[in-house]
Amino acid sequence: MCTAATYKTKDFYFGRTLDYEFSYGDEVVVAPRRFPFHFRYMGMTESHYAIIGMAYVAGGCPLFYDAINEKGLGMAGLNFVGNADYKEPVSGKDNVAQFEFIPWILSQCASVQEARALIERLNITNTPFSAELPVAELHWIIADRDGAITVESMKDGIRIYDNPVGVMTNNPPFEKQMFNLNNYRHVSSKTPQNTFGGGLPLDTYSRGMGGMGLPGDLSSQSRFVRVAFTKMNSVSGESEAESVSQFFHILGSVDQQRGCCDVGEKEYEITLYTSCCNTDKGIYYYTTYENHQITAVDMHREDLDGRELVRYPLVLGEQINWQN
Amino acid sequence: MCTAATYKTKDFYFGRTLDYEFSYGDEVVVAPRRFPFHFRYMGMTESHYAIIGMAYVAGGCPLFYDAINEKGLGMAGLNFVGNADYKEPVSGKDNVAQFEFIPWILSQCASVQEARALIERLNITNTPFSAELPVAELHWIIADRDGAITVESMKDGIRIYDNPVGVMTNNPPFEKQMFNLNNYRHVSSKTPQNTFGGGLPLDTYSRGMGGMGLPGDLSSQSRFVRVAFTKMNSVSGESEAESVSQFFHILGSVDQQRGCCDVGEKEYEITLYTSCCNTDKGIYYYTTYENHQITAVDMHREDLDGRELVRYPLVLGEQINWQN
Amino acid sequence: MCTAATYKTKDFYFGRTLDYEFSYGDEVVVAPRRFPFHFRYMGMTESHYAIIGMAYVAGGCPLFYDAINEKGLGMAGLNFVGNADYKEPVSGKDNVAQFEFIPWILSQCASVQEARALIERLNITNTPFSAELPVAELHWIIADRDGAITVESMKDGIRIYDNPVGVMTNNPPFEKQMFNLNNYRHVSSKTPQNTFGGGLPLDTYSRGMGGMGLPGDLSSQSRFVRVAFTKMNSVSGESEAESVSQFFHILGSVDQQRGCCDVGEKEYEITLYTSCCNTDKGIYYYTTYENHQITAVDMHREDLDGRELVRYPLVLGEQINWQN
Amino acid sequence: MCTAATYKTKDFYFGRTLDYEFSYGDEVVVAPRRFPFHFRYMGMTESHYAIIGMAYVAGGCPLFYDAINEKGLGMAGLNFVGNADYKEPVSGKDNVAQFEFIPWILSQCASVQEARALIERLNITNTPFSAELPVAELHWIIADRDGAITVESMKDGIRIYDNPVGVMTNNPPFEKQMFNLNNYRHVSSKTPQNTFGGGLPLDTYSRGMGGMGLPGDLSSQSRFVRVAFTKMNSVSGESEAESVSQFFHILGSVDQQRGCCDVGEKEYEITLYTSCCNTDKGIYYYTTYENHQITAVDMHREDLDGRELVRYPLVLGEQINWQN
Repeated sequence: MCTAATYKTKDFYFGRTLDYEFSYGDEVVVAPRRFPFHFRYMGMTESHYAIIGMAYVAGGCPLFYDAINEKGLGMAGLNFVGNADYKEPVSGKDNVAQFEFIPWILSQCASVQEARALIERLNITNTPFSAELPVAELHWIIADRDGAITVESMKDGIRIYDNPVGVMTNNPPFEKQMFNLNNYRHVSSKTPQNTFGGGLPLDTYSRGMGGMGLPGDLSSQSRFVRVAFTKMNSVSGESEAESVSQFFHILGSVDQQRGCCDVGEKEYEITLYTSCCNTDKGIYYYTTYENHQITAVDMHREDLDGRELVRYPLVLGEQINWQN
Repeated sequence: MCTAATYKTKDFYFGRTLDYEFSYGDEVVVAPRRFPFHFRYMGMTESHYAIIGMAYVAGGCPLFYDAINEKGLGMAGLNFVGNADYKEPVSGKDNVAQFEFIPWILSQCASVQEARALIERLNITNTPFSAELPVAELHWIIADRDGAITVESMKDGIRIYDNPVGVMTNNPPFEKQMFNLNNYRHVSSKTPQNTFGGGLPLDTYSRGMGGMGLPGDLSSQSRFVRVAFTKMNSVSGESEAESVSQFFHILGSVDQQRGCCDVGEKEYEITLYTSCCNTDKGIYYYTTYENHQITAVDMHREDLDGRELVRYPLVLGEQINWQN
Repeated sequence: MCTAATYKTKDFYFGRTLDYEFSYGDEVVVAPRRFPFHFRYMGMTESHYAIIGMAYVAGGCPLFYDAINEKGLGMAGLNFVGNADYKEPVSGKDNVAQFEFIPWILSQCASVQEARALIERLNITNTPFSAELPVAELHWIIADRDGAITVESMKDGIRIYDNPVGVMTNNPPFEKQMFNLNNYRHVSSKTPQNTFGGGLPLDTYSRGMGGMGLPGDLSSQSRFVRVAFTKMNSVSGESEAESVSQFFHILGSVDQQRGCCDVGEKEYEITLYTSCCNTDKGIYYYTTYENHQITAVDMHREDLDGRELVRYPLVLGEQINWQN
Repeated sequence: MCTAATYKTKDFYFGRTLDYEFSYGDEVVVAPRRFPFHFRYMGMTESHYAIIGMAYVAGGCPLFYDAINEKGLGMAGLNFVGNADYKEPVSGKDNVAQFEFIPWILSQCASVQEARALIERLNITNTPFSAELPVAELHWIIADRDGAITVESMKDGIRIYDNPVGVMTNNPPFEKQMFNLNNYRHVSSKTPQNTFGGGLPLDTYSRGMGGMGLPGDLSSQSRFVRVAFTKMNSVSGESEAESVSQFFHILGSVDQQRGCCDVGEKEYEITLYTSCCNTDKGIYYYTTYENHQITAVDMHREDLDGRELVRYPLVLGEQINWQN
């Protein structure tokens, strides 16, 4: 379905894959400070933090999949089918429709700490955006350079988890995902010692045997383990190019190849796009399934005091660099 | 270490990853038909099939890691440390030094069948290229659109295996790799039936659970399984762009991320480059660890009747496409 | 640590392994109907259902590990270290000390349904039996021929779970154990189809390959999966001998062999005893680590209207049957 | 199918499981020194080492599954279907029919070293015992207190392998089984260190987590790994009772429970019997699927200078020890 990750070198990077069998038509969107967000129950914002992210724009309104704001806060919604539960509006709470949650946070909060405070008052409502767009079942990761949290609205209410690993996928709920990592405690980026027993001489016939036990399939629990391991062991230079490159390698570890996840009717879930945001510089980098080159949009090259959305359709086909 | 794969849509594609902790300085090299190959024991070629491939050029001589020729035959050498065994020259055999094996085949053979015939007479010698360059321990995959073989020179001689899966990695020897695939017979790109027993209702909480059991680490046996599964289940359009894109996704399933394979002394094995050759069109596509964009060299844009090597240094840094 | 299981043929069977590095000195104990249970907060029972089970008898009081009563209800306590949480006594609840929970239920309840009703009013207290005996951290399985439940007293209170698989081990909490079974949905007692992909011919080189993916270690989550699979697929005759034999084979699948679970200081957790109760006939069968023969005590051969405990020290050494 | 193991404390123990869906009617058989073995091509023995083992006796001839001789040498034949290849008789070799191989070795050899010398001259023939009994496809383990070998007759001839782990199962060939153990190098009887990476705190929620990665299914490659681990880590006292008890626990780790290996037509492969021979004392211990008690036959209680087979039908039903 999807995988999100964070990575810190000199700057802080935040991104995700979006895995599905078709695209709604996604665009990189900049919502400048005076672009009006009309919240269903919470009124309209006059001015807010500028936001850049990936969105489906419906009737002039950006429905963000993932985004960052100019203060360095990032947020992404990932599928959470069967576990997500949103409520009717209630009094005494901040009622925010599920599809408004990302702009609600990113327009107002400069940090995870501020987001956390806002979420304490929150009721995520099951209000659909329109009759045509069913309410997606999502959970969220919110991160800045100092940490990350996961937010899940389930039958028994909203839970906010510290997310020490800085990654997220889909089902099961976050607490189970983190528990499951315990089963991979012994996995290592180094060649393991021979501890089989009895002095039996066993061979390291390959490099990379320390990772044995890591799951290689595309299910959401296995992707969680694999991306956690990859992120936790990542090594790169601190330059922008090296950091961004490494980030795409981290999410590449959970790339969904067309054909490997058959969802029936000759349809296949694939990694439609992969994003990497430099949250310090306000740059949105992305690749798509059919375009390995990294494309970028820099929010600071736009007029961030504007009122209009700035929209960049995705570059979708392979951009091949011919040397001759 | 390395992974090779083949893929057929309308055209036939052949490529590999090269995984190591440092590069010798690789280039895409075209050896036109009249470039002279001086074989140590087998004389010099006056004229031969044109070749394009990745090589380290030493003293004017291309030491190919992988290449294709103008007839559509591809060949790659992959690490086979501890199992490869090369011999002293013997009379009555075609004595070919290990480092000459790729040009020996690609300069003369238009198909796997012709290569197989030539290998029947072969003795791969342990002759070093020079005092500075130790003899690499390799085994080889040779493929055309009709099939693939694996060639291993071990203590008990040269073995030629049909390679029905069209992929190869490193240790253990090919026969063991193929046997090991039997353990993954039940793995599927589809959601599995519930066969646990006793009518216990068990949930498919995620898409992609059919792949459960696939190994996720970077060891050579695990990469073999993973790339075999990915290749065998691959689905793509037949156009050049779609085929090439899918090929890089196939090899992306065994990408080695920096940090995950620690070889000591703060060095890490990474996927230095990934290649994809269209064997029908003579195009060499590649990406490098630090450049996600696909770069290409087309052999037919060179003078293939020439005598001189044509050399293209790799494009190494991220080529980012700025949309604003 | 421990594993519990249930099995139904003509009669209903309930039992467990107790895994630890030393024994407190266990005995098969029959508590007849008029044996007085003095509960710390709930008074004394004048008369109750007769009980047979495994217990450490301290100061004349049987501290049961597992037991059944004459009505066919079985109950066992298994280690739940780090997750169990017991409380101070509170008013308005049935305050029952952790060590009293088994007799509290088995003395009064004829069925799981009755036990469930009693547990709704329950507060499990952290009252120690004595200064010498620390409060064990346990959770419980309660079963009759119609079903099983798991009872866990954790920080947020007591939870009662339907237990459709009829097995239990230790950590993690039951909900996570059940969720984890989803990951083994595809496992089967039958030879799997070849679904690897691409028509690659893969061999079934062995019988039993349908079980591939089942974990083979002694951790509590792996034992849960293995014993669940074994129980759910068990086939046996319906006679007493065949049923009992099969039951010991089921729990044999999670036998802890001395040496395989090293707990330090040259101590090893082993399966100290394995029990199997015919809940219909009131028979307690057991084996010990050093005695493979099944030993039995039949509660109905005792005076069940008595006031005194009947105690049978375990037969501990191998009872070998010499044929010559 | 079957598993063999060895174990050394003060004495040396050798045994096996025989797994199948039905029994031919097995007996513990003592062949005293003057019992005549009529070999098809090698004449008759006048006098030989006395042998005790499990056999199907056909027309007065013991067809041994496994046996030891009075000199302390043990030998067992295990299924090797699809890989075993026996030959026509040839001149210049010791032609021994497959079904004669165990008595051929045990009647003449006092040690593995002597057996090895004899096997150098051997040709195992495909001669059937009779029209009714097809030639079983087997490979063999031969062991004494100083070591073990595995003998496989395949298409390319007889191979003798040192067997440093002292266990054997069925397919694949021994060399592949030993290679596969390398993949379990990191497995341990101890709690593993947390090496996942990035300082992520991961919990050891259970004892026994060092064994994670061990396979839990009943296929022959998985049983090989599991019994190897169990044997290599076994700890027991040195007394006869403790050693024998531990041996049955070792082979218990690969017990096949009825129902878990479905071979079709409502038939299930189960562990028909498990044996443990004290090769120093000449005692044959066994359990059967339906009898957990250990039964024993001591060859030295028979007249070993006799000419007649001594036969003990197996004790098949549960021998329950009633304490009341």
